[in-house]
Amino acid sequence: MINDKLKEECGVFGFFNNNDYNVAKMIYYGLYALQHRGQESCGICVNNDGHFLQHKDMGLVNEVFDNNIIEKLKGGVGIGHVRYAAKNNISRENAQPLMSIYKKGTLAIAHNGNIVNAGKIREQLELGGAIFQSENDTELILHLAAKHRVRTGSIEGALCEVMKELVGAYSFVLMSPRKLIAIRDPNGFRPLCIGKLDDSYVISSESAGLDVIQAEFIRDVEPGEIVVITKEKGLQSFKSGIPAVTAHCIFEYVYFARPDSVIDGCSVHKTRVKTGKMLANIAPVPADIVIGVPDSGLSFAVGYAEESGVPYGEGLVRNRYTGRTFIKPSQGERESAVNIKLNVLRANIEGKRVIMIDDSIVRGTTSKNIINLLKKNGAKEVHMRVASPKFLYPCYFGTDVPDKKELLAVNFTTEEICKRIGADSLAFLSIDSLSEIGLKKDGCYCKACFDGKYPCKVD
Amino acid sequence: MINDKLKEECGVFGFFNNNDYNVAKMIYYGLYALQHRGQESCGICVNNDGHFLQHKDMGLVNEVFDNNIIEKLKGGVGIGHVRYAAKNNISRENAQPLMSIYKKGTLAIAHNGNIVNAGKIREQLELGGAIFQSENDTELILHLAAKHRVRTGSIEGALCEVMKELVGAYSFVLMSPRKLIAIRDPNGFRPLCIGKLDDSYVISSESAGLDVIQAEFIRDVEPGEIVVITKEKGLQSFKSGIPAVTAHCIFEYVYFARPDSVIDGCSVHKTRVKTGKMLANIAPVPADIVIGVPDSGLSFAVGYAEESGVPYGEGLVRNRYTGRTFIKPSQGERESAVNIKLNVLRANIEGKRVIMIDDSIVRGTTSKNIINLLKKNGAKEVHMRVASPKFLYPCYFGTDVPDKKELLAVNFTTEEICKRIGADSLAFLSIDSLSEIGLKKDGCYCKACFDGKYPCKVD
Amino acid sequence: MINDKLKEECGVFGFFNNNDYNVAKMIYYGLYALQHRGQESCGICVNNDGHFLQHKDMGLVNEVFDNNIIEKLKGGVGIGHVRYAAKNNISRENAQPLMSIYKKGTLAIAHNGNIVNAGKIREQLELGGAIFQSENDTELILHLAAKHRVRTGSIEGALCEVMKELVGAYSFVLMSPRKLIAIRDPNGFRPLCIGKLDDSYVISSESAGLDVIQAEFIRDVEPGEIVVITKEKGLQSFKSGIPAVTAHCIFEYVYFARPDSVIDGCSVHKTRVKTGKMLANIAPVPADIVIGVPDSGLSFAVGYAEESGVPYGEGLVRNRYTGRTFIKPSQGERESAVNIKLNVLRANIEGKRVIMIDDSIVRGTTSKNIINLLKKNGAKEVHMRVASPKFLYPCYFGTDVPDKKELLAVNFTTEEICKRIGADSLAFLSIDSLSEIGLKKDGCYCKACFDGKYPCKVD
Amino acid sequence: MINDKLKEECGVFGFFNNNDYNVAKMIYYGLYALQHRGQESCGICVNNDGHFLQHKDMGLVNEVFDNNIIEKLKGGVGIGHVRYAAKNNISRENAQPLMSIYKKGTLAIAHNGNIVNAGKIREQLELGGAIFQSENDTELILHLAAKHRVRTGSIEGALCEVMKELVGAYSFVLMSPRKLIAIRDPNGFRPLCIGKLDDSYVISSESAGLDVIQAEFIRDVEPGEIVVITKEKGLQSFKSGIPAVTAHCIFEYVYFARPDSVIDGCSVHKTRVKTGKMLANIAPVPADIVIGVPDSGLSFAVGYAEESGVPYGEGLVRNRYTGRTFIKPSQGERESAVNIKLNVLRANIEGKRVIMIDDSIVRGTTSKNIINLLKKNGAKEVHMRVASPKFLYPCYFGTDVPDKKELLAVNFTTEEICKRIGADSLAFLSIDSLSEIGLKKDGCYCKACFDGKYPCKVD
Repeated sequence: MINDKLKEECGVFGFFNNNDYNVAKMIYYGLYALQHRGQESCGICVNNDGHFLQHKDMGLVNEVFDNNIIEKLKGGVGIGHVRYAAKNNISRENAQPLMSIYKKGTLAIAHNGNIVNAGKIREQLELGGAIFQSENDTELILHLAAKHRVRTGSIEGALCEVMKELVGAYSFVLMSPRKLIAIRDPNGFRPLCIGKLDDSYVISSESAGLDVIQAEFIRDVEPGEIVVITKEKGLQSFKSGIPAVTAHCIFEYVYFARPDSVIDGCSVHKTRVKTGKMLANIAPVPADIVIGVPDSGLSFAVGYAEESGVPYGEGLVRNRYTGRTFIKPSQGERESAVNIKLNVLRANIEGKRVIMIDDSIVRGTTSKNIINLLKKNGAKEVHMRVASPKFLYPCYFGTDVPDKKELLAVNFTTEEICKRIGADSLAFLSIDSLSEIGLKKDGCYCKACFDGKYPCKVD
Repeated sequence: MINDKLKEECGVFGFFNNNDYNVAKMIYYGLYALQHRGQESCGICVNNDGHFLQHKDMGLVNEVFDNNIIEKLKGGVGIGHVRYAAKNNISRENAQPLMSIYKKGTLAIAHNGNIVNAGKIREQLELGGAIFQSENDTELILHLAAKHRVRTGSIEGALCEVMKELVGAYSFVLMSPRKLIAIRDPNGFRPLCIGKLDDSYVISSESAGLDVIQAEFIRDVEPGEIVVITKEKGLQSFKSGIPAVTAHCIFEYVYFARPDSVIDGCSVHKTRVKTGKMLANIAPVPADIVIGVPDSGLSFAVGYAEESGVPYGEGLVRNRYTGRTFIKPSQGERESAVNIKLNVLRANIEGKRVIMIDDSIVRGTTSKNIINLLKKNGAKEVHMRVASPKFLYPCYFGTDVPDKKELLAVNFTTEEICKRIGADSLAFLSIDSLSEIGLKKDGCYCKACFDGKYPCKVD
Repeated sequence: MINDKLKEECGVFGFFNNNDYNVAKMIYYGLYALQHRGQESCGICVNNDGHFLQHKDMGLVNEVFDNNIIEKLKGGVGIGHVRYAAKNNISRENAQPLMSIYKKGTLAIAHNGNIVNAGKIREQLELGGAIFQSENDTELILHLAAKHRVRTGSIEGALCEVMKELVGAYSFVLMSPRKLIAIRDPNGFRPLCIGKLDDSYVISSESAGLDVIQAEFIRDVEPGEIVVITKEKGLQSFKSGIPAVTAHCIFEYVYFARPDSVIDGCSVHKTRVKTGKMLANIAPVPADIVIGVPDSGLSFAVGYAEESGVPYGEGLVRNRYTGRTFIKPSQGERESAVNIKLNVLRANIEGKRVIMIDDSIVRGTTSKNIINLLKKNGAKEVHMRVASPKFLYPCYFGTDVPDKKELLAVNFTTEEICKRIGADSLAFLSIDSLSEIGLKKDGCYCKACFDGKYPCKVD
Repeated sequence: MINDKLKEECGVFGFFNNNDYNVAKMIYYGLYALQHRGQESCGICVNNDGHFLQHKDMGLVNEVFDNNIIEKLKGGVGIGHVRYAAKNNISRENAQPLMSIYKKGTLAIAHNGNIVNAGKIREQLELGGAIFQSENDTELILHLAAKHRVRTGSIEGALCEVMKELVGAYSFVLMSPRKLIAIRDPNGFRPLCIGKLDDSYVISSESAGLDVIQAEFIRDVEPGEIVVITKEKGLQSFKSGIPAVTAHCIFEYVYFARPDSVIDGCSVHKTRVKTGKMLANIAPVPADIVIGVPDSGLSFAVGYAEESGVPYGEGLVRNRYTGRTFIKPSQGERESAVNIKLNVLRANIEGKRVIMIDDSIVRGTTSKNIINLLKKNGAKEVHMRVASPKFLYPCYFGTDVPDKKELLAVNFTTEEICKRIGADSLAFLSIDSLSEIGLKKDGCYCKACFDGKYPCKVD
C-alpha cells in the first residue's frame, strides 16, 4: 500500500575485496536485497586503483544496472546506495553515492539517515564560500570531511571531528583511496552491520544484505563507532566518544526492515510475531480468521493467530512484477487502485469475521480501501488491529513523515478513525506494550513518533 | 525457484467495451494480473473501427507497454496475451496476439494451450501452398479459420469447423471486425472465464484477471463452448457438440494458477489448503514448524499446519523487484543463486525440526538448494512434503515439461530422491488422495502427468 | 527538405559469405549506405545453418541495431532492407525482410518497388483461403512462391512462375535455406547490382552499397533476370523470358540515388552535372552565383556553373545529426522550420543575383521557404532552375506521390508557380532534353511521371 | 574524418526570454546548430522562477532530449552546452551546464575554452578545504564566483574578480536567479556572440546558432567583456579592464566553426575561400579537378578552383545518419573504416589528376586512407594541399591536441610526409600567408599552434 506508508530514506552497502569477487556485482546483489529501503534511485561507486568509477540513476537496482555497466565498474572496493527521495528531491542529481575530489584525494559516501542540524551547517559552510551541487544533506558531510582532513592526520580522525558537528541520524559508508569506512551515529538510530565473505569485508544496512551474497554476519556497527577497513590492517574500530543515549529506531522493527534481518541483536520477524501476540492479548475479538496486510503485516498476523487461537489465513494476495514503469491508474480510475496491488482471497473471507492486521495507520486511506474491499468480498465483520501505537509526532531521523494535519491519529479519536475507515472495531498497540515485545531492553529505542520524546536536540 | 518449475505457456484476456473504458488499459491490468502465466513476451491488439492496432514484444507487461503506447492503442474491443515461450521459441515473432488479414477481413487470436495434432495440420496446409510466419501452432488456427470461413456463413460457424479438426488443449480469445469470441476445447484443459464490468464483457484465463479491474465473475466458459460477444446481441453461446470427457488440468490447482482465482467452481487456495491437510494425514512427522516454499507452497503449508497441529511459520523470504533485466549470477557464482531469490528466516528455523512443503519436484535441484540452505541456517531436520504425486509422464497440453531423463521421479525411488536432495524424510501426495482434495468430482480432471492416462489421443 | 520530396520506398541488400565475414555487420554497413532510400524502418535476416534469425524495427539503421543484436545475427547468408513506408503503413509489422515457413523450408524476402496488380493477386489468394499478416504487397510474393514451389522442382523455377503473374516494379533479394537470390522485374524499373568481396557475393540496390564494404562492382542485375548464388555453383543466371520494354526509373538519377552510385551503366553524378549543363543552355540568366539545394541539387549546380560561366558557390548549409528522435517544431513554430534543416551562407548570398537549382518541385512549399530565406539574407534576385520536367502524372512503380491536386505543376502554369514561390524567374528542364542528359540511349527509361507514358499496364 | 581531427571542446548557448518562447526548445535548436562543437555530451539548465531545472547526459542533442524532457524544462531563462570531452573525461558527471548552490542562491555555468592556470587555482581552493565533484575545470569557476560573491555586491562584480584570477581561454554563459551573463576572456580566444529574437536575448558560441532560431545577430561579445541581461535593465555591458592582446583562435576559421558563421566580423566561409585562393597561388600544380575533403575542405576547394582555373568537383561523398550508436568496425575491419564515412565519386576521379584539399594534417592517417582510396578508384595523381600551416605546437586554449610525438609535422619534413601519405605532391599554407587570408587585421589572432607564440603565459 505504497501510498499510505512512511518512507524510509535509504539503504547503504559496502564491499572491501580481499578475494577475487566482482565487487560491483556483490554490491548489486546487496542493494537488491535492500531495495525495500529505497526505490527511487540507486548507485554504485567503486575504487579502481585510486580512480573512482560510479554509476547512478533513477530507478530500481535492476533497472539502473545491466551487465555492461557492472562489468565497467571494475574495482577492489565499492559502496552502494538505494534511495527513497524525501519530498521533491527526486532528480538524478540527488542519487547517491556522492563523490568529491579534495586536497587529499577522492572521497565517496552513501548515507542513510537525516542530519537534524543540516541547516546550520550549510549556513556556516556557505559563509566560508562553499558551493553545493544539491540540497542533499549528504553533501555537507563531504565538505566537513574535507575541511577537517586538511588539519587532521587521517580520514578517520577527520570524520571523528565531523561527527562532533553532526546532530541526527546517520549510518554512513565511505570510501577513500585506500579505505572502506562505516560510521553509525552516537544514538545508533539507523541499523548498520558488518559481515565477512571469505577474507572480504561487507557493510550493510541490514543483515539480509549479507545473506544474499552468503556473507557471514559478524556484528552490528556500534552507536558512535567508526569502522575502518584496509588491506594492511583489516578491520579497525575507533570510538568517537561522543556521549549519547542509544536510540535505535523502533519503526525498523515495525515496518521498515525485512523480516529476515536481525538488527541490534533482535530478529525483526520474531519481534513482529511477539507484537502480534501482544496485540492478541491487548485487543482480543471473536473472529473466524486472522489475516495480515502484505508484506509486513503477515508476521504480526501469525503471532496474533497463535496467541488468540483464531486461525491464520491468507486474505489478501499481492500482485508482483511492478516497477517504476508500471502505468498507474489515472485520477478517474483511482478508486479501483487498491485492486491493482492487492486482491482479496474471497474463499477465505466470504461470510467470515475477519481480524486484519497492519503495521500502522498514517493517513488511513489504504486501510479504508482494503476494508471496503474485504466487505465487498463478503466479510461479515472486519476488525482492524494495528501493530504499533498511534503515530502522533514528526520524525527527524530519516523517515518521510506527512504533515501533522494529515496524520489521522493526531486529529481523530480511535472511535472516529474506526468509523472513517469502515472497520467494525479498531485497536492500536499501546506505548507501554512496546517495552515488552521482545526487544533487548527498554531505554535503548527511539519511539519519538509515538511519544514525542526525542533522544537528541531537534529544533 | 524459476529453474525447477514447470512452465505454463500462456494467459489470455479479452475486453468488449460497451461503456467508455480505455480498452487497452483494462487489458493491460488484466494481463498484469495474469503475468504469472507467462513472463517472456506479451501483447495487446485492439479493434479501432475495423482497423486492428497491436503492440507486442519480449518482456513483462510493465516493460513492454508505457502510457504512450497504451494511448495509441485506441479501440472498442481488444485482446491480450502473456506468453511463456516453449523451448527456443523466444523471438519477438512468436509473441501474441497473432493477426491475419483474409477474405472476410481481419482476425486476431490469443491462445493458451497446445494443439496435439499441429504437425499433421501444418503438413496438410503446406501441401495446399500455405505459408507461415512462425513455427507457432496458433498460426494454424488462423489458416484453418480463413479456410472454413470462405465456405461458412459466419466466423463462429467456421470456428466450429476448426474445432473439429483440432486435438489438444486450447483456450482462445479471438477478435473479428465486429465480434469478440472465446473458445475452450471440448476437454476444457485450460481455464477460461467470463466477467462483466458495467455493460462491458471481459474474458480472462483466470478470475483474478477480472478482480483486478473490479469486473464481476459471471461463469466459466464451458468445455467445447463458443462464446460470441457483439454490440447487437450481447453474449451468445454456441456448442461445438464435439464429444469429449471433461479433463481440467489438475496442475492449475497445484501450481499454475493464482491462489485467489476460482477455476471451474473451485477455489485454488482452498484446494491447496485441503491438499495440505491431506498431506498431513498421509505423511505426518514430528516437527517444530511447517513452512511453505513461496509463493505456491504457502497455502499447502497453512493446511498442513492446521491439520497436524505443528505451528505454521514463515521460513523463507522471497526477494522481490526482479524482472527481465535482473543480472543473473554467472556460472561460477551459481551455487549461491538460490539465495538471490530466497532467504532463510533464521529466527524461525534455527534449532528446529522443519516440515517444508513445495508443490512438486521436477528435477530436484531447487529442493536440494533450499534444504541445504535451511540446514546451514540451523535446521535440525528437514522433512520435505510434496503437494502432488510424482511427476512421471510428459504433458501434451500446454506445459513445458523437461525430458523424461531429467524427471527425478522417473529415475529414482522416493528414498533415493530423499537422499539426493538431502532431506531427512520425503513424501509425495498419492494419486488416490488427489480425488479427495476438495475438487468438484472425480473423473473431470486431467492427471496424465501423474498417471499417464491421457484424456485425448496423443501420438 | 524532407516535406516536399517524393519518397522512394526501399533499398535492399544481400550477402552470400564464402569467406569469414560477419554477414550481419556487412549488411549493416550496406544498409547504412542505402539509408537515403528508406528511413522509417529497417531489418536484417540471416541464415544460421537453415534456421533464419531476424531483427527489424522502426528507425534508422544505427538506431535499430547495436553490437549485441548484430552479434546474435550469426549466419552465412543474409538479406537486409531499409524502408520508406507508403502512406499509413508505418507499423513495425510492415518492416522487412519478411519471412515465411512453408512446405519446402523457409523463405525470406526484401523488396524494393511496387506491384501494380497486387489487388488482383490478393483477391485470388484470399479466395483460396490465404491469410496475410499485413497489407504489405511483399507478402503476396511469399504466397505465390510457396504455391508454385510445391509444383516446381526448384525455387528459381517457382520464382520464374511468380514473375509471370506480377506486373510492376520489383527488385527482390530472397533467401532460401541454401540460396541467395536476386530478381529484377522485366522492365528493370528499380536498380539492383551484383558485387564481389573476395569470394563472397553481394547484392545491393545501388553500387554505393558495395563501395562501403569495399566490394567490387561486377554488373547490374538485368531486367527479367533471376540470379541464384549457392555454395556449390557460385553465381548462376536465369532469364524469366518475359517480354518487356526496358524502363529504368529516371527519377533515380534526378533525385533518389546517391551521386556516387553508378546505375545501369551511368554515373548518377555525371548525369546530374550534364543535366545542370543542359539547364544552363535551356534557361540561362545573368547572375552572380549558382547554388544548389543540398544534397541532390549540388551536382546540378556544379554543371550549371561550369556551362554558364556563373561562379559556383555554397549558398545553403545543411544541419546534420538529426534522426528519428529529433524534436520537430510545433505548428506555431513551423514557419521557421526551414531554418532548422538549412541555413543561408549569407556571405555568399548578400547583394547577389542567385541561381538556385533543385531537383524537382512537388508541392512547392520548400522552394518557397528557401527563396524567402535567401531574400531575407540579402539576395537581390533568386532565379530557380529545376533539374527535371514538370511532375504531372502519378507513379505506380514504387514512389510515394501526393494526390494530383497537390502537384503544383498540374494546377498552375510556370509563371503562376514562379509567383507563388516568390522567385524572380523559374524554368524547368524540358522532356525533350531528358534524352540528352548523358544517359545510355533513349527508349530505355521510364519517364511516366513527366509524360504519362507508362511502360506497363496500370489500372 | 573524426579520428584525425583536432577536437574543439565545447559550444555554449543562452536564452533570456522576454516573449513567450519555450526557452528549452530554443536552446535545443541552438545546441543542435552548435553540435559540431561537441558531440559527446550536452545539457540544458533553465531557471524556473528561481528554481533551476536541468537535464544532461552523454550523447547528441537529439539523443539526450525528447519532447517530454523539453516540456519539463520550463523556465524563463536558460543555458545550454555541447561538449567534446578532453581525454578520458567522458563520464556523465562532466556534462555541462554545471550548477551550484551557494550563499547567494543558485549559479549555473556553461564553458567553452580551457583555463591554463587551473592547476594552481585548484590547489589553492583545496587548501581552503574545497571539494569538487569532478576534475572539470569549469567547477573552479563556480568556487571562485561563490568565494568572491560573498565579499562583493553583485554577481558581475564577483565575476570580474574571478576573471582577474583566470589565465586562458573562456567563453562563459552563466545564469543566476535573476540574470543571464555572458563573458569572454580578455584575449577573446573562443567566439561568443549576442542575438535578439523579438524582445528576447540570445547568446551563442557562433552566429549560426542564432540563425537556426531566426534570431538577429547583434554583435560579438568583446574580449574581456561581461554582458549582463536582466528583465529590468535589458542588456548591460561591463568591462573587466584586464589588459590583454586580442588573440582570436585562427583554427576556428580553419576548421572548427561552421562555414555559415560570422566570427569577430569575418565570414568563416569567405575566409576559407580566400585561403583556397591563396593556396592556389602558393602551390599550383597542373591537374584536372580540385576536390575538398568534406565538410570543411569544400570551401577551400571552391577557392582553389576559382583561382587556379582547374575545375571544382565533388570527389568524396560523405555518409550521413551516424550518431553515437553507430557500430564501428572492429580492429580487424579498421582498414576499410574510411569507406564508411567517405565514398569516392569514381566518375569524377577515374583517370584524373586530382588536387585534394583538407584543412589540416594532424597524424596523417586519414589523409593516407583517402589518397589510397582515390588511387584505387583510378586517380592518376593526387596532389594534397593543406589549408593551414604545419601544426607544430600544442594548444592550451581548448583544443584537444595529441602528443607532440604523434604530430606528423613535428617529426617529418614535407617530403617525408608526402611519401608517407602516398601523395604525388604536398604543400602547406605558409604562416606568412595566414596574414592575408582576408581576416580583419594581423596581430589579433592566436596562431600559436603554428608559430609557438602564445598570447598569454602558459607553463
